[in-house]
Amino acid sequence: MPRYKLTVAYEGTEFHGWQKQHPPGAEPLRTVQEVLERAVMEVVREPVVLHGASRTDSGVHARGQIAAFTTTTVLPLDRVAVAINARLPDDVQITRAVTVAETFDPIADAISKGYRYSIFHGLPTEIRRPMFDRRLVTYVPAVLDPGRMHAAAAGLVGTHDFASVTRVNHGRESTTRTVLACSVTASTSHRLRIDVSGTGFLYNMVRIIAGTLVEVGRGRLEPGAVPEIIARRDRTAAGPTMPPEGLCLMWVRYGGTKARRHEGTE
Amino acid sequence: MPRYKLTVAYEGTEFHGWQKQHPPGAEPLRTVQEVLERAVMEVVREPVVLHGASRTDSGVHARGQIAAFTTTTVLPLDRVAVAINARLPDDVQITRAVTVAETFDPIADAISKGYRYSIFHGLPTEIRRPMFDRRLVTYVPAVLDPGRMHAAAAGLVGTHDFASVTRVNHGRESTTRTVLACSVTASTSHRLRIDVSGTGFLYNMVRIIAGTLVEVGRGRLEPGAVPEIIARRDRTAAGPTMPPEGLCLMWVRYGGTKARRHEGTE
Repeated sequence: MPRYKLTVAYEGTEFHGWQKQHPPGAEPLRTVQEVLERAVMEVVREPVVLHGASRTDSGVHARGQIAAFTTTTVLPLDRVAVAINARLPDDVQITRAVTVAETFDPIADAISKGYRYSIFHGLPTEIRRPMFDRRLVTYVPAVLDPGRMHAAAAGLVGTHDFASVTRVNHGRESTTRTVLACSVTASTSHRLRIDVSGTGFLYNMVRIIAGTLVEVGRGRLEPGAVPEIIARRDRTAAGPTMPPEGLCLMWVRYGGTKARRHEGTE
Repeated sequence: MPRYKLTVAYEGTEFHGWQKQHPPGAEPLRTVQEVLERAVMEVVREPVVLHGASRTDSGVHARGQIAAFTTTTVLPLDRVAVAINARLPDDVQITRAVTVAETFDPIADAISKGYRYSIFHGLPTEIRRPMFDRRLVTYVPAVLDPGRMHAAAAGLVGTHDFASVTRVNHGRESTTRTVLACSVTASTSHRLRIDVSGTGFLYNMVRIIAGTLVEVGRGRLEPGAVPEIIARRDRTAAGPTMPPEGLCLMWVRYGGTKARRHEGTE
């Protein structure tokens, strides 16, 4: 049976995250998985189960989420994304569709993932605030130093026990993960982005990394403090969990090919 | 009495345009003028009348709208914009505040204005659609040729009777205006923008110019046909009125100084 791998982009603002949620006795919440699975079923005209690579939280965006489904229906590849998109609301879209092996597992087969956290920063007494893209960036009412943040980011790279930067009661056995790269780039005097990639991420890990780097950027922590914060394996040592609107899942990489970032959406 | 000139940016999506509208027996509609005037009155603690340079339509955006009000309250200039912004919703903001002569009239004193119309184009059978900025661009389901459009745009420049590119029953006496410049720029293979500036604009003029240039871009009209379309002074000779979401008032120029585009908002 054909199995399809979809690259999915969404603005998370009006979704309750990726994963389906059916509260007992109530309507299912509006989640990306729910909305996308329904659109796929309308196209293939049979029940399908849609699996995603990353369970992004409520309000978190994606440019390169990966989802997969198996169907008995053979679909022409050049039409499957267009057909699904025609049945999707305007805050989610397929940007690419390919066929994959029947055994393809979007979670287990993922080699690495990349996230971006976007920040608009400035003193609250300044006029400047984000507006046209306010749903896609987090506003930080302080002046941040991207150079200090970038220096601190280097302290995250490598294989570590990241218990300091995940939610307490995270419910996973091991908190050891590998961060492949972490960089902080200023695009204007008021805008910066944190790009972090790794082989896997703990719950809230990117948002707490961002919060910790913001503490460095505003001068409350020294860049050299990051390795010690990680070594303490204590959530209270790290910075706050940043809000979801600045976070975006950029790509998921599988066996040698990286899901391209801008295949469809610009 | 001090008179203040404000540069105003807004996302027009959820506004019924600039101008106040109070339907009889109903709540006033949500307009930029209404919302902004109320915020100003909260700051100055007295009634004010706020005048704008351009009555943008429902759904049209602005980066450089100009508004002015006179008050008996003397406000420190470095705080007036921050104080007003603190009382504004997140889809409108002041990006600059200056004091002006008591006689300053934002409509009569305007020397020129600039608008931008932003388009995302591509065949409907293609995957690509705008998503993250879907409220700020118009999607055109066709492949457009920006070079042809730019060539056609030159035919609009100058002082002409623009009756062909305004709404029938426009209600103004003269339909002669001067277009100072009109250019079409492709930013990616799917995105282009039309920038037009002039000493004054008729109702729907930029949206009909955009619709006419789109007809050229898709090959239904020749670039050289534009002067003839204008010369006919007949609305039916021009292209369709494009929807509001692609349109943005970029700047209004007064006596030698141009309202800067990015003073506050980025």
